[in-house]
Amino acid sequence: MKTLKVADVLKSEQYHQEIAVNGWVKAFRSNRFLALNDGSTINNLQCVIDFENLPEDILKEINIGAAVRIKGILEESEGAGQRVEIQVKDIKIEGVANPEDVKLTILSPKRHSLEKLREQAHLRVRTNTGAAVMRLRSKLSFAVHKYFQDNGFYYVNTPIITGSDAEGAGEMFKVTAMDLKNPAKNEDGSINYKEDFFGKETNLTVSGQLEAETFALGLGQVYTFGPTFRAENSNTSRHLAEFWMIEPEVAFCDLAGNMDLAEDFIKYVIGYVLENCDEDLEFLENRLVQEDKSKPQAERSDMLLRDKLKFVLENNFKRVSYTEAIDILKSSKPNKKKKFKYIIEEWGADLQSEHERYLVEKHFKCPVILFDYPANIKAFYMRLNEDGKTVRAMDILFPGIGEIVGGSQREERLDVLKEKMTALDIPEEELWWYLDTRKFGTCVHSGFGLGFERLVQFATGMGNIRDVIPFPRTPLNAEF
Amino acid sequence: MKTLKVADVLKSEQYHQEIAVNGWVKAFRSNRFLALNDGSTINNLQCVIDFENLPEDILKEINIGAAVRIKGILEESEGAGQRVEIQVKDIKIEGVANPEDVKLTILSPKRHSLEKLREQAHLRVRTNTGAAVMRLRSKLSFAVHKYFQDNGFYYVNTPIITGSDAEGAGEMFKVTAMDLKNPAKNEDGSINYKEDFFGKETNLTVSGQLEAETFALGLGQVYTFGPTFRAENSNTSRHLAEFWMIEPEVAFCDLAGNMDLAEDFIKYVIGYVLENCDEDLEFLENRLVQEDKSKPQAERSDMLLRDKLKFVLENNFKRVSYTEAIDILKSSKPNKKKKFKYIIEEWGADLQSEHERYLVEKHFKCPVILFDYPANIKAFYMRLNEDGKTVRAMDILFPGIGEIVGGSQREERLDVLKEKMTALDIPEEELWWYLDTRKFGTCVHSGFGLGFERLVQFATGMGNIRDVIPFPRTPLNAEF
Repeated sequence: MKTLKVADVLKSEQYHQEIAVNGWVKAFRSNRFLALNDGSTINNLQCVIDFENLPEDILKEINIGAAVRIKGILEESEGAGQRVEIQVKDIKIEGVANPEDVKLTILSPKRHSLEKLREQAHLRVRTNTGAAVMRLRSKLSFAVHKYFQDNGFYYVNTPIITGSDAEGAGEMFKVTAMDLKNPAKNEDGSINYKEDFFGKETNLTVSGQLEAETFALGLGQVYTFGPTFRAENSNTSRHLAEFWMIEPEVAFCDLAGNMDLAEDFIKYVIGYVLENCDEDLEFLENRLVQEDKSKPQAERSDMLLRDKLKFVLENNFKRVSYTEAIDILKSSKPNKKKKFKYIIEEWGADLQSEHERYLVEKHFKCPVILFDYPANIKAFYMRLNEDGKTVRAMDILFPGIGEIVGGSQREERLDVLKEKMTALDIPEEELWWYLDTRKFGTCVHSGFGLGFERLVQFATGMGNIRDVIPFPRTPLNAEF
Repeated sequence: MKTLKVADVLKSEQYHQEIAVNGWVKAFRSNRFLALNDGSTINNLQCVIDFENLPEDILKEINIGAAVRIKGILEESEGAGQRVEIQVKDIKIEGVANPEDVKLTILSPKRHSLEKLREQAHLRVRTNTGAAVMRLRSKLSFAVHKYFQDNGFYYVNTPIITGSDAEGAGEMFKVTAMDLKNPAKNEDGSINYKEDFFGKETNLTVSGQLEAETFALGLGQVYTFGPTFRAENSNTSRHLAEFWMIEPEVAFCDLAGNMDLAEDFIKYVIGYVLENCDEDLEFLENRLVQEDKSKPQAERSDMLLRDKLKFVLENNFKRVSYTEAIDILKSSKPNKKKKFKYIIEEWGADLQSEHERYLVEKHFKCPVILFDYPANIKAFYMRLNEDGKTVRAMDILFPGIGEIVGGSQREERLDVLKEKMTALDIPEEELWWYLDTRKFGTCVHSGFGLGFERLVQFATGMGNIRDVIPFPRTPLNAEF
């Protein structure tokens, strides 16, 4: 007798067959109806216990949270709420759960706050919300790989520990094998990194882009999907110190092709979860509806979760140049009425999240791709336009999430790249290998970075990024 | 006109059609035959130039390494060595490559040592060997995800930065945001980690197992696939300081099921690359044949690469208990003749790589699963057998590679686990969350860790692990 997954049993029509199934007790009522879940689906399997013929000591151990192995007969259910049920012939308690202890945890059968779930992140997948989010995250991860592999991209694992600090995307964590209390020092009192494990100063990567570029300029189309880090003291619902990033990089591809790729990619992965995670999405959608009830009208969502996902799928992302966006913002109501914290006065201003939200949520009411930003607010490796003042950068902004993608056509001209690095005091010795790629058959190429957790947030409707990664790392928090 | 990939052009039969194709010049002879490669395949596309009608300045720039965009007509080739070729109508030099500079790099058309390729890792995918290995690595990665996703496993991203140092798998790198020259200190001179980014001491993970277990005990079947780290001064062809590990973890699964899973998994992914990477495997197989010619007879492989892979696919892994293995080793020739560096005297000895190699390569001549090791040479979380002296551990040993998998059934009994932790001085406060999983519906469960690079080594036949990861991190080496 093969042990089946609850998800498969719930779909089965092999009535009157004996089956085995394992899992955890989610509910037990009337000493008779055991709701069993094994993580394979949001739905529980009703197992009907013949309590009159069950030894008292076993019956007493059927408590919420206990692990059980069940054998029984699959039958059509007469009860409301389920199509099938198991008439239990044999139940083995594999691991007990003391009700007094369970009461103190998020396993207890009542509504728990998301904060409380976070504090017990090690038990979070035992809750409906935690499990639905993590199942969806897993499917979304696979969709990412499948999209790129089906389209001829190669997966590249760029290094996590990096000897370069020129990536310029933010504050970095230091990595060392030295004794912090007593690190090797030079005569002038500075740290002697020659004595450290790698013989040089090393950090945790903030982006695999530069290394991915070297691979794209050989394999043609590549993507990364790995952890990246920011040692920034940002305690917001959109920032993590450790998060997963997806970075495709494509040779012989310009900014327009880059936008096409990003839009096609996002639509594919959203479509994939719509197709493969309907039960979890339905649960998360209802969760949001409940959550909205406690919010003031203005903050409630005007679309159901799955409708929002379908909307992204079915509509073109609006492509707007930075210059157009500035014009829209300058003449916008909140700018004129000085409701923005940062008033847009002139071309060249860096857009804040309030401006991005206005464009996406109020003005265009759809995902927006902003492109051709002023050169001086963007990174050194972005392709300078012929106007000499803008670069071929693009950001994709999503309703409720803000920036989800940042990308650009890369500066492929060796001389222009060197000039920019000189202007920004980035030593050439530091990036000799990056410059090399511009010496040996350089070409137009582009890529982008997409913060995976923001995508999971969008797909699940979860408001706080800490709820979509298994064990979030944030300032003052590295528990588990 | 759509731009095609070289791989697709080589398969095309759309003769007399005009097509566009981009890539890098791999060879150019007689001012006429340009071998073009874009990374999509190991094979080059022959592009025939009408040099008499091409401007001299363009012709001069068609050098090895240059990036070009080509338009032309697809024709059946009359030359030997290719089925199709492009009659070039238009060629644009996108990026030049100065022959004098190219001469100094691994792009120059001659045999380069693997050491030299490593020094120029940023150009490595521009070589046949580098590209073949990295394409195969990418396919193998996808096979990993596909296997688990098709079998109902959920992908879990366990944390990279960990606040726990109880994983016990080796030396860890420290992660800090403090100024190493002047870290915050307590009055007694010790480091004041409360002032650090996470408010505690943090390290780079050596394994995601413990966190993965918490997920398996809710979602049922999960797997990790992410970077792990060892700050160990191992300068060997089998060790990296940063490497990618695959760690499945399964609830309600015992050691036998764990062995079944590992064997089935390895066979699937090897089968996947045999099916999807034949051209690259053929190239790598021939590379090995060439390499073997310079080796003494005794060190040469007695099987071709693809035959070796098929052998793994078609034969059962030999399952041998540690106790049996000790008996075999004790009465083996090298033990009796004292050829082993470490002579096996009695039960309880830790097996060295020389012993593992003897078992796999001389005695059984096939992949071997060793199981039921002495408790005191294995980790605290492994399930103690009823004999009280062995644990339900298993290692899978591969010919030429050595240990490729290490796994176990996990100790699911709270009291036994606590005893072991006490004996090993692992504070309970450190792993309160791990212990919690044994309180609330604990169950028999198992998992294993597989070093991804060792798998890539096996599948590609590469002898040095540094040649199968894009930018290897080893002692004194964190370049790029």
